[in-house]
Amino acid sequence: MTIDLNCDLGESYGIYTLGVDQKVLPLVSSVNVACGGHAGDSAVMARTVALAKQYGTAVGAHPGFWDKEGFGRRYIAMEEEEIYQLCLYQIGALHAFCCAEGVQMQHVKPHGALYNAALRDPAAARGMVRAVKDFSEHLLLFAPVHTELEAAGERYGLKVAKEVFADRTYTAEGTLTPRTEKNAFIYEPEEAAAQVLDVLQKGAVKAVDGTAVSMEADTICVHGDNEQAVLFIQHLREWLEYRGASVQAAGEFI
Amino acid sequence: MTIDLNCDLGESYGIYTLGVDQKVLPLVSSVNVACGGHAGDSAVMARTVALAKQYGTAVGAHPGFWDKEGFGRRYIAMEEEEIYQLCLYQIGALHAFCCAEGVQMQHVKPHGALYNAALRDPAAARGMVRAVKDFSEHLLLFAPVHTELEAAGERYGLKVAKEVFADRTYTAEGTLTPRTEKNAFIYEPEEAAAQVLDVLQKGAVKAVDGTAVSMEADTICVHGDNEQAVLFIQHLREWLEYRGASVQAAGEFI
Amino acid sequence: MTIDLNCDLGESYGIYTLGVDQKVLPLVSSVNVACGGHAGDSAVMARTVALAKQYGTAVGAHPGFWDKEGFGRRYIAMEEEEIYQLCLYQIGALHAFCCAEGVQMQHVKPHGALYNAALRDPAAARGMVRAVKDFSEHLLLFAPVHTELEAAGERYGLKVAKEVFADRTYTAEGTLTPRTEKNAFIYEPEEAAAQVLDVLQKGAVKAVDGTAVSMEADTICVHGDNEQAVLFIQHLREWLEYRGASVQAAGEFI
Amino acid sequence: MTIDLNCDLGESYGIYTLGVDQKVLPLVSSVNVACGGHAGDSAVMARTVALAKQYGTAVGAHPGFWDKEGFGRRYIAMEEEEIYQLCLYQIGALHAFCCAEGVQMQHVKPHGALYNAALRDPAAARGMVRAVKDFSEHLLLFAPVHTELEAAGERYGLKVAKEVFADRTYTAEGTLTPRTEKNAFIYEPEEAAAQVLDVLQKGAVKAVDGTAVSMEADTICVHGDNEQAVLFIQHLREWLEYRGASVQAAGEFI
Repeated sequence: MTIDLNCDLGESYGIYTLGVDQKVLPLVSSVNVACGGHAGDSAVMARTVALAKQYGTAVGAHPGFWDKEGFGRRYIAMEEEEIYQLCLYQIGALHAFCCAEGVQMQHVKPHGALYNAALRDPAAARGMVRAVKDFSEHLLLFAPVHTELEAAGERYGLKVAKEVFADRTYTAEGTLTPRTEKNAFIYEPEEAAAQVLDVLQKGAVKAVDGTAVSMEADTICVHGDNEQAVLFIQHLREWLEYRGASVQAAGEFI
Repeated sequence: MTIDLNCDLGESYGIYTLGVDQKVLPLVSSVNVACGGHAGDSAVMARTVALAKQYGTAVGAHPGFWDKEGFGRRYIAMEEEEIYQLCLYQIGALHAFCCAEGVQMQHVKPHGALYNAALRDPAAARGMVRAVKDFSEHLLLFAPVHTELEAAGERYGLKVAKEVFADRTYTAEGTLTPRTEKNAFIYEPEEAAAQVLDVLQKGAVKAVDGTAVSMEADTICVHGDNEQAVLFIQHLREWLEYRGASVQAAGEFI
Repeated sequence: MTIDLNCDLGESYGIYTLGVDQKVLPLVSSVNVACGGHAGDSAVMARTVALAKQYGTAVGAHPGFWDKEGFGRRYIAMEEEEIYQLCLYQIGALHAFCCAEGVQMQHVKPHGALYNAALRDPAAARGMVRAVKDFSEHLLLFAPVHTELEAAGERYGLKVAKEVFADRTYTAEGTLTPRTEKNAFIYEPEEAAAQVLDVLQKGAVKAVDGTAVSMEADTICVHGDNEQAVLFIQHLREWLEYRGASVQAAGEFI
Repeated sequence: MTIDLNCDLGESYGIYTLGVDQKVLPLVSSVNVACGGHAGDSAVMARTVALAKQYGTAVGAHPGFWDKEGFGRRYIAMEEEEIYQLCLYQIGALHAFCCAEGVQMQHVKPHGALYNAALRDPAAARGMVRAVKDFSEHLLLFAPVHTELEAAGERYGLKVAKEVFADRTYTAEGTLTPRTEKNAFIYEPEEAAAQVLDVLQKGAVKAVDGTAVSMEADTICVHGDNEQAVLFIQHLREWLEYRGASVQAAGEFI
């Protein structure tokens, strides 16, 4: 019953502050650090890696489309090779700040529209996975099960940390209930913890239609946008630990 | 009598082509590859590192100000820490493409206005040198003698490859004759080779006023902007070799 | 029998040169000037508008996605409102250089992936057209017939200059034969001129399957990428004039 | 006794929010809207101009160096012509959003490092002023007295709105006391109002050494970064009006 908690971090930019990074860091075990593509810049990256080191939180690269104006949420039509190169560039950039701090980069998780593309599009998934593999075969890939990203990760021999969402419900097909649906979100930390524990103990989640869908989890995606989100993480973690789960960085148990 | 020939490379961008990289590569022993700051992008970097590997030419990072519109030639007022972070980011990005190709990065040389700042401004030089050192103490730093960049490199314990210009004359103070002066440039490859051989054999150049100025050289900066520049490199190299000098990547003999 | 010849121009960027603008300008009647989105910058825009004025060629704005690395050829998923704002911004920017030169902006034509989106996607077409209309209802919109862009232009009351391609063949549906097909391109200026004259005289083109497809033309899109392309324009124009057509800027006869 | 209150606005960017624009707008008479250079983007510009229209606040362009990472606060070495082109581009871009809203652009005021350069460097001032003049000679230029920017504005025949700072003290030379000095700032709205009224009534401010320095004021620069800053503006305005001054947009009385 060991689980990783991962959260996007380092998404400030220049004078612009986003998120409450310092409050999130002590609560999670892994952070996905923006690499200057959809967010972040070299100063923010330096600061974020140093902070993560201070809290002993594992660091991963969080590459995204080069589109700060759209925060990496707008799909950009790129070929496999372009995605490969984009990811390699951003992973390398973050790695440099890890080097400087003596921190070992643990994982890679794509951001926003790039993440969505890599889940569904085999070419995007391959581009992403090949970049991780060519950079270092020791890096973990974060990916939900039943996705092209997971499939590509396995095929190229990467270690894949299976990712679930604690604050989102699932359909009978094992995909996230679309945000537009009423019951898409889980607001109660206790309920979110229960869903995670179901996955850990029974290898399944209860879908919105009541059926059990097989599911695996090594890492849970949480959000740290504001104080309320941080409270959610804190309570989720307390419930998980109270019910016997141990929170650890994915790299320590995969 | 061993000398390195270094040239800026990989300065194309998207649809835009600059330089005749394929013709330069077989003639030089080291290339300074643009990192997406003043020029280059992830596709160009991938292509350039692959080409350099194919020709067995040593690869270095060529960080520059984030200013493609100005090609990194406009000074941007940045603090030491900002320069440190800028360099770390760009060195890391290029390193990723070296990783993917199994190429060892040999050196770092700053570009344009960043180079000029690092020669004269101790804070800029420190920012640059600390980035190289924190990334890897095995990297060579390219720097002319009698500059803040060289001094910072020595102070932080980096191996410094002393750089001279083959196609530029020197003043009695050991600095380049300003481009605005009539006699700033050397157009004849034979003459350029003679200047380099003076440095190698006598540890001095003849300045424009006729005096001998002490000078050291591990690497010569040449340019590959067009066919004519490539011819200059070819003839310079032929003269150097004819007169007994051996052209090798700096990393092999420093 | 009056026709406009339009060509993309001002696509250089910083130190990077693209196209042979000075050779194209005397041969065409309208130019679509890049606005810093997919290509161009403020120096190139200033230079291009000044040159167009000197040759008496009509100037139009050529907005594109903010993606110089991809030259505006990669689709970026943007909402109608985002496209509206993008176009307004870039049209306004070019307008400023027209103001400074005392040149009246004649038209707007979107570039690359934005052009393709505006042809097929009603929301993209509306965003584009509303931007033109809100900036100035006197601006011409360049659009091929039977497209969402033309339809939106008509609906919002803009004057639309119907655009055909001289160097591309058409399918029986009145769309361009895909570039991947063998017979997609017309290489002979005489043949290209014949296609244009068919449109002008008979209101139709002969499609690749031999059927006649109704077609209208106020302006012909030509390309000025290199010397060969310029020769094509020159011969096309000679054939058109020899056969009785008069080349004029669209704003003069629409 | 009429005075304008101007404040920088529209400095948010994509997902990033900066300032409390909606609270500032009813309190000031003119706003300087970021044009996508140092801050802002086309969505923010659209929103900001629409809001300003709603509150009846006069709109000006606030061009800055292309450096969002540094918020336009880092000097970039640009020639007069480059500054001219940068300003023309950004003024034109903002003008388009004014067009779309039926708002007349009132003035131009440069931002950050560009503002500082234009105050001291005649070439920068000329580049800036020529851009304003070439775009429209009806635009007001905001500039402090005794500066190169004011001088250039006068020389080129622009109407200049003289700008003073309400929350900063002045030296005996009529320049702002450097921020590093203890007495550089005025924290009390009443004191700030008194300084402004001195200028309006006596044509002078009391410098930090007690001497009276001649000063003129058409517009007062205030800041709207946060709730506290907004309170300062509100109280400053109340004191000004209580003491008989009338707050109006500069364009209405110059």
